[in-house]
Amino acid sequence: MSAGESMSVSVLDGPGKLRLEERPVPTPGPGEVLVRITSVGVCGSDTHYFQEGRIGSFVVEAPLVLGHEASGRIEAAGSGVDPALVGQRVSLEPGIPQPYSKQTLAGHYNLDPDVRFFATPPVDGAFAEYVVHPAAFAHPVSGQLSDDAAALLEPLSVALAARAAGEVQLGDKVLIAGAGPIGLLVSAVCALAGADVTVTDVRAERLAAAARYGAAHTFTTADAPEPVPEYQVFIDATGAERAVLSGMQRLAPRGRCVLVGMGADTIALPVPLVQGRELRITGTFRYANTWPLAISIAEKGLVDLDGLVTSQHGLDDVGAALVAGAREGALKAVVHP
Amino acid sequence: MSAGESMSVSVLDGPGKLRLEERPVPTPGPGEVLVRITSVGVCGSDTHYFQEGRIGSFVVEAPLVLGHEASGRIEAAGSGVDPALVGQRVSLEPGIPQPYSKQTLAGHYNLDPDVRFFATPPVDGAFAEYVVHPAAFAHPVSGQLSDDAAALLEPLSVALAARAAGEVQLGDKVLIAGAGPIGLLVSAVCALAGADVTVTDVRAERLAAAARYGAAHTFTTADAPEPVPEYQVFIDATGAERAVLSGMQRLAPRGRCVLVGMGADTIALPVPLVQGRELRITGTFRYANTWPLAISIAEKGLVDLDGLVTSQHGLDDVGAALVAGAREGALKAVVHP
Amino acid sequence: MSAGESMSVSVLDGPGKLRLEERPVPTPGPGEVLVRITSVGVCGSDTHYFQEGRIGSFVVEAPLVLGHEASGRIEAAGSGVDPALVGQRVSLEPGIPQPYSKQTLAGHYNLDPDVRFFATPPVDGAFAEYVVHPAAFAHPVSGQLSDDAAALLEPLSVALAARAAGEVQLGDKVLIAGAGPIGLLVSAVCALAGADVTVTDVRAERLAAAARYGAAHTFTTADAPEPVPEYQVFIDATGAERAVLSGMQRLAPRGRCVLVGMGADTIALPVPLVQGRELRITGTFRYANTWPLAISIAEKGLVDLDGLVTSQHGLDDVGAALVAGAREGALKAVVHP
Amino acid sequence: MSAGESMSVSVLDGPGKLRLEERPVPTPGPGEVLVRITSVGVCGSDTHYFQEGRIGSFVVEAPLVLGHEASGRIEAAGSGVDPALVGQRVSLEPGIPQPYSKQTLAGHYNLDPDVRFFATPPVDGAFAEYVVHPAAFAHPVSGQLSDDAAALLEPLSVALAARAAGEVQLGDKVLIAGAGPIGLLVSAVCALAGADVTVTDVRAERLAAAARYGAAHTFTTADAPEPVPEYQVFIDATGAERAVLSGMQRLAPRGRCVLVGMGADTIALPVPLVQGRELRITGTFRYANTWPLAISIAEKGLVDLDGLVTSQHGLDDVGAALVAGAREGALKAVVHP
Repeated sequence: MSAGESMSVSVLDGPGKLRLEERPVPTPGPGEVLVRITSVGVCGSDTHYFQEGRIGSFVVEAPLVLGHEASGRIEAAGSGVDPALVGQRVSLEPGIPQPYSKQTLAGHYNLDPDVRFFATPPVDGAFAEYVVHPAAFAHPVSGQLSDDAAALLEPLSVALAARAAGEVQLGDKVLIAGAGPIGLLVSAVCALAGADVTVTDVRAERLAAAARYGAAHTFTTADAPEPVPEYQVFIDATGAERAVLSGMQRLAPRGRCVLVGMGADTIALPVPLVQGRELRITGTFRYANTWPLAISIAEKGLVDLDGLVTSQHGLDDVGAALVAGAREGALKAVVHP
Repeated sequence: MSAGESMSVSVLDGPGKLRLEERPVPTPGPGEVLVRITSVGVCGSDTHYFQEGRIGSFVVEAPLVLGHEASGRIEAAGSGVDPALVGQRVSLEPGIPQPYSKQTLAGHYNLDPDVRFFATPPVDGAFAEYVVHPAAFAHPVSGQLSDDAAALLEPLSVALAARAAGEVQLGDKVLIAGAGPIGLLVSAVCALAGADVTVTDVRAERLAAAARYGAAHTFTTADAPEPVPEYQVFIDATGAERAVLSGMQRLAPRGRCVLVGMGADTIALPVPLVQGRELRITGTFRYANTWPLAISIAEKGLVDLDGLVTSQHGLDDVGAALVAGAREGALKAVVHP
Repeated sequence: MSAGESMSVSVLDGPGKLRLEERPVPTPGPGEVLVRITSVGVCGSDTHYFQEGRIGSFVVEAPLVLGHEASGRIEAAGSGVDPALVGQRVSLEPGIPQPYSKQTLAGHYNLDPDVRFFATPPVDGAFAEYVVHPAAFAHPVSGQLSDDAAALLEPLSVALAARAAGEVQLGDKVLIAGAGPIGLLVSAVCALAGADVTVTDVRAERLAAAARYGAAHTFTTADAPEPVPEYQVFIDATGAERAVLSGMQRLAPRGRCVLVGMGADTIALPVPLVQGRELRITGTFRYANTWPLAISIAEKGLVDLDGLVTSQHGLDDVGAALVAGAREGALKAVVHP
Repeated sequence: MSAGESMSVSVLDGPGKLRLEERPVPTPGPGEVLVRITSVGVCGSDTHYFQEGRIGSFVVEAPLVLGHEASGRIEAAGSGVDPALVGQRVSLEPGIPQPYSKQTLAGHYNLDPDVRFFATPPVDGAFAEYVVHPAAFAHPVSGQLSDDAAALLEPLSVALAARAAGEVQLGDKVLIAGAGPIGLLVSAVCALAGADVTVTDVRAERLAAAARYGAAHTFTTADAPEPVPEYQVFIDATGAERAVLSGMQRLAPRGRCVLVGMGADTIALPVPLVQGRELRITGTFRYANTWPLAISIAEKGLVDLDGLVTSQHGLDDVGAALVAGAREGALKAVVHP
């Protein structure tokens, strides 16, 4: 690959309107690397942009490249970057904060309002043959990880952030709502942290996977037991109000609730319950400082990231990848540019 | 006072039905003291029981004595209690947990489901000439505190618990909604903790007192500035959904919200806001381990508890005391049995 | 067993002076149970009292019964205790705090200066056929636990307290010095909490057991690698200054050091290291609120408590039990009264 | 001031060897500003370098400019910096971390091993007419602050970091050893946080100032009361082993000890005390994220920074400034280049 060559990029022009476009291969600036993309996972937010053209206040107004769960191989190094990194396989952390912003210096770089994040207008994502990326956010991975697994360190990071927000620790009883990719990874991560994990979902068939991802117990919404205040932590990975309210009812005094799932704009928070049990409720926004642990967990084989992949697609098939999640039994589609 | 004498007690038979009753003066059991009540503050929950006959699931089904903000003088000591305590002026902590319950041993004795709390059915309160109380929860106070101030260590404890739940500390910008007795005390306590305090209320005339209770800034709901995410902590002392939602909008990333006020059964929690700023929301249920600090603050004159008292009543005037809070300019009524 | 019967008790009269004594079987008071002792583990502190007649300021001045790691079976229930508990197998938590003391109400009942603790002068321990004990501190265990394992929930509690003090959590690299019973249990507990555990000891043969108790890595003092600041947590279970200093050198910035082992009166704390890395150092004193988790872990078979037992003794053989720990390969002696 | 001009700089060639040197005025690079220095406080570490030529492993091997407590005025802005900042008065935060280092992204940028810090070999300090500095670490101050006060936000930051490390909060009893500039500022800051502060020093005359800096109580080492475990927090600003050990003896159960003072290489840590009270000991290394709060406190007049200044010197008088601290009654010397 040399300067001046072109590459294919999958571009979203508006709801449902995807096309391949040829663009020049970008050149890495100071501190950056050029990465040839090898795998990109499809996230529910990609699907939402594809189908609705917006997520809340983020509106697709100009052509946008989706995809933010990406792995690849370093092809070129910008100035100030060790040239020995060329050839290194990497997992890309998709959000780049301003270096000396208030939130970055406080250790919450994910909350920096000026963070640049793949596939969030106006920043392009990774459904492309190449991207440039700051070297500090292109995390080296070993040969023990497949390209897909390296890409899926991103949802694993979401799960690690949820675990941390819930302060899940040894001996906690943890209830997780939602057995999609995020719920399963949260389950796996909490089990690794020594928690006694229960996963619930509206669909019984989705619970079958939960046991493989750390759950000691499962129940469907239809078969939910009477609410008993027995859990130290409840983590919602559905975004559904009913699931959140049911989960809160099951929290013990001083229990913690972590809202990870997106969907509901509001939830009817039961104030007397929050007060009477002194519950603690929070939400997570992406993640910060999670990649080193995600890599360590994945490289030790403690979480089966490849097992989440239920379909693989080419760059000319991104449209199919974006809707694959709705199929029975589907967990995670990946695109191989 | 000797055994076998009788005392007057103010009894609530149902909504709006109060009467004086003669009852035998009780005898302190092991670890208990007999306390002659000198002052009892009226709380909004007393008024609610008086007017509605219930608070949520707590229903007045049998004659009930109201009043849980109480001070007095020890008149007799049960077995195992130092007899030198007779004559000691005390402030009564109204909730008595089971000694070795799970929540008590964990340091959260206020969350012990078997706690016995003044004026919470079926436990009688302190609108009486005498009560018996465990010595460990009858906290000695010095002559520097008036009887009223000793009684009002209870709402001061509510404020201290709110401060602690919000982890309010030096330099925090804190917004407090509600300039009633609890809001004012929360303001005072947060200012003592080194916070930069703003108090808001729907009624401008209630804000006048806020400056005397630590507020550096005030605004009325009608004159509220545009919401800017500038506060580290928001503490609600209104129980009103609109106030809570307005306060949350003003929280900085990682901001903390403490729900102290009772009223709304549910609040339409804005999930994207909670997630996007990783807000932390909790509520307080009474207090634990607050009396030593409350006494220290009050005895040093750091908070003007007597300044909250806007009317004083006899035991035969409890009905008037219970509705005095609705009057213009009223903050706190006290009963002197 | 009926009132008025007698029982055998192993009594320490001074350094090295043990004898069996007949005493009346005690009667449980209010809230207490009578427990027939089935197994008592020997702790290093028992051995220390036996050999030296004192531990620091605790001096054996009158006949003392040793033993504080005890299990048994409830034989009688005092007033206020559910009589259905008779026959229940229990693990005894050996320290009984004052119910409403400052430290108890604050959740740190182990720090209550008036705690009554088995085998700490002047309180007798459990090398006896029967003891009376508050029911709240006689924790029911299921048939899945052997008598020995139920007794060894006490050292497991020490380990859980160390884990909690070190805030060991998912992904932490944890270094543990000392591969005796406590070090092994700390290792097991940290591994369950998702930590990457390394155990070190001066004796290579003691490290063989570490892998069975959660250690992913081991090294002997003689083969210690160059100190690199790579560990988030260091837990000392040796009480030896050299081990503590070596461990601290290996802590990463903001690393935590937990001093569990007893032995050294002072350690030459390297102040510039503590400051330059902002290390956090603490020590543990027994445990609080650990039994429920200890029982849960043991009943699920997650830690092999029986595997620690290397010799079993009768009540007439306590002297041998107390010195059994010095033998090659010995980990834990237990006494079966 | 224009490019190519020269400036005077005070250079240390070795122990006791200071001279003025003419150097070219530096040019600000991207993200940097050129600052004309208006005031520089003298710190004990400057004096130590001047007298000994080293601090621990930091050795003065080449000519070094001392001074790291600095204020000034922006004279020129590098690329990427708002030119409107020219003319702005600023306080300089002296340590510049690597932007995306592990410790920086974790919120502990002071612990970044590659931090560049004024007057720490080989990085030059601020005893100069001009310095260039990253704009993000040149904090704007208002006209309410004098040049000296703006410089002394640096030791105020040290005090704020100590307060934070000790988690000093409302109601804590705090003992501070050392009534030099740092001890006084720690006292002031803890008092602002609502603590009940006691300051101790070996010299009675130094305690006179403590009352002006927040201390409610003082005692000299000679008149020290019997140690009672009454303090929640002990902060050492002496670096003297005797002071540290005396302070630890006075900590209540779960008390916190913060080592701020430099001096002792080791302290004989009393292990049974640390364990028996579960003390928590830490040290601070400079500070992170403190300037906004320091500015707010100083601009409100809550701490009298100018009151610390006991002598003022020109750039040709740095040698005198560096030894001024040893004079009776001296607190802080400042240099005005």
